[in-house]
Amino acid sequence: MPAIAGVHLTALKAGIKYKGRDDLLLVRLAPDSSVAGVFTRSTTASAPVQWSRDVVGRGKARAILINSGNANTFTGKQGHADVKRTAAMAGRIGGCKASEVLIASTGVIGEPLPVDRIERALSRIKSRARTASWLQAAKAIGTTDTYPKGASFRVDIAGSPVMLSGIAKGSGMIAPDMATMLAFVFTDARIPPGILDELLRESARESFNSITVDSDTSTSDSLILAATGQAGNPAPKSKSDPSLKAFRTALKELMTDLAIQVVRDGEGASKFITVDVIGANSTANARKAALSVANSPLVKTAIAGEDANWGRIVMAVGKSGAPLDQQKLCVSIGGIAIARSGGRVSGYDEREVATHLEGANIQIEVDLGVGRSRARVWTCDLTHDYISINADYRT
Amino acid sequence: MPAIAGVHLTALKAGIKYKGRDDLLLVRLAPDSSVAGVFTRSTTASAPVQWSRDVVGRGKARAILINSGNANTFTGKQGHADVKRTAAMAGRIGGCKASEVLIASTGVIGEPLPVDRIERALSRIKSRARTASWLQAAKAIGTTDTYPKGASFRVDIAGSPVMLSGIAKGSGMIAPDMATMLAFVFTDARIPPGILDELLRESARESFNSITVDSDTSTSDSLILAATGQAGNPAPKSKSDPSLKAFRTALKELMTDLAIQVVRDGEGASKFITVDVIGANSTANARKAALSVANSPLVKTAIAGEDANWGRIVMAVGKSGAPLDQQKLCVSIGGIAIARSGGRVSGYDEREVATHLEGANIQIEVDLGVGRSRARVWTCDLTHDYISINADYRT
Repeated sequence: MPAIAGVHLTALKAGIKYKGRDDLLLVRLAPDSSVAGVFTRSTTASAPVQWSRDVVGRGKARAILINSGNANTFTGKQGHADVKRTAAMAGRIGGCKASEVLIASTGVIGEPLPVDRIERALSRIKSRARTASWLQAAKAIGTTDTYPKGASFRVDIAGSPVMLSGIAKGSGMIAPDMATMLAFVFTDARIPPGILDELLRESARESFNSITVDSDTSTSDSLILAATGQAGNPAPKSKSDPSLKAFRTALKELMTDLAIQVVRDGEGASKFITVDVIGANSTANARKAALSVANSPLVKTAIAGEDANWGRIVMAVGKSGAPLDQQKLCVSIGGIAIARSGGRVSGYDEREVATHLEGANIQIEVDLGVGRSRARVWTCDLTHDYISINADYRT
Repeated sequence: MPAIAGVHLTALKAGIKYKGRDDLLLVRLAPDSSVAGVFTRSTTASAPVQWSRDVVGRGKARAILINSGNANTFTGKQGHADVKRTAAMAGRIGGCKASEVLIASTGVIGEPLPVDRIERALSRIKSRARTASWLQAAKAIGTTDTYPKGASFRVDIAGSPVMLSGIAKGSGMIAPDMATMLAFVFTDARIPPGILDELLRESARESFNSITVDSDTSTSDSLILAATGQAGNPAPKSKSDPSLKAFRTALKELMTDLAIQVVRDGEGASKFITVDVIGANSTANARKAALSVANSPLVKTAIAGEDANWGRIVMAVGKSGAPLDQQKLCVSIGGIAIARSGGRVSGYDEREVATHLEGANIQIEVDLGVGRSRARVWTCDLTHDYISINADYRT
């Protein structure tokens, strides 16, 4: 993945929770960079989320400090003081005010942030250090992730070539809204903060907000988009500016790519599942039905067991409350129609579906039979490994 | 458990799915018995649920036919025809019309009901067969249940002793509303259908509608209350009739007892969990927060692992959207305060909580700090055995 002009990365070993690996990432942004953010809707949002919401509200930032191993959530007044202190520290290194530093933390909830360790690590930064790679950066922000997640695109805005690069980390506690714990997307394009915010929200809906691993929403979910303006393109006038067409498409593709990487790495996942709901009477209801299927433990365990138990899909659609016509409801797995007109397709041969379920990419489609709206969500199966990872996460 | 005057039980081996065990239960009710029912809210409700809703709507029934091993759900026109045919058959044996027969089926979804096997089994019923025991009845309706579920009470209505006995089966796909797959409660009291219906709904709210195993709602959930009137008590005038006081309490206790038996037998459960939410601004919000904790895979796996990861409780309360005051939020496990005023209690010693988590009965309490409303729900932990049971349910 190529570097982005105006983005400087430093990965550090602070020893917050993990030993012998990078767990702190300082991102320095060129002066006058625009930022936008989307955060968890949790009412117990972490101290860093509360801080970063304010920074993003001003539309400008010069640095992002990200740590893994401790979420600094539900840590009371101390938690807020710790955020302020680390932001000030990062600001000194980045040559900016604390109020221009975004903070993101991921890891265990409720334990005090070891600020001293973060301070010690930051104090080791050399003034002329070379930028770290995206790979190093993606590794530094990971927790239970089994692989680093990144994606990159190159497009033009009004004739100027611009770059987009992003990194993300999962991998449990993934549910809309928001759907990933942390994702950071950078571009060297020049885009004013208001437009950047609109572009981010538009792309988030069909990417990070359409994935789910276990229906649990984190207190720390943060998605940040930063634009350094170093590409020298003329600033667009609005989200709908024709010069932004390729950029919008690339941003959506990049974020979808990252979101899918997150869900593929769902804790304990052995299969990647795409759920399409069509024939709904509204997009909201299509989405509701799709998420109900994607979050159903009974559907997810059946797929882990490669069992073509399509009745559980019917159950999950039924419990969602999305309007449907039982006499028109259709269910297919792997493109093979199983149920139609309120019952099993005559002559249905389960072996074909069984073969599809042996694969790693599972496709489920449900037609509710009451309209033309549709939604797609992505999830993974529910396996013994999910239990193993989560029954004993903290030790 | 004592017999109920006017209730005759016959347990049969029909070989619907299970071999060498009873899987069919015919309950015959005395003439003029009142019935009430609460059913799943799923939009893909089974053919038997759709049939029984109509019967209950008329307030009177003479028989209940229950089978395990096949849910007769999403079986199209054939499914409805099969319900009608089995109801007619049971009516012939019970000396009543098909429209006076309630039907309940539990088991796999989407497979045609083997009606011939049910017919053959019913044809073997001897005219003067003695009633089966509640134990036999409870076993006949079970699927993945590891023990039969029953409870009994004796109270007075206006000086007449009346009996209450109930049976239930779980044990996965348990979530409000409704919360159990099948439960049948019988009394010899004389209670008009309208009042019976009100009593049932009142008790269901705090019993079967307050338990959850995996957030999955079945297409077959049915709770039936039948009153044979054989006790000879004077009929009450309304739900609030003073003569009903003890009966109402007993009914609620009996249904709570059955509901707890169902959740204790949650698929793969190793621990029984009581979640109390207090300090909410409404009962609905207290319930929303409690169910969010009870359904969180991350909370449930942590408890399975006996890990005092209370931060996940904060996460689950936060994602529920129930209003709370972060500076007043309190969390305790096993009566031990862990978090208060937005952070961990100073001097908190995790060992005490760890000891509580080694037990089989786990108590979680959350104070949202914004009001005086409360709710209690029951659930179980999420273990490797849940995955094992459900990854390969049909084979």
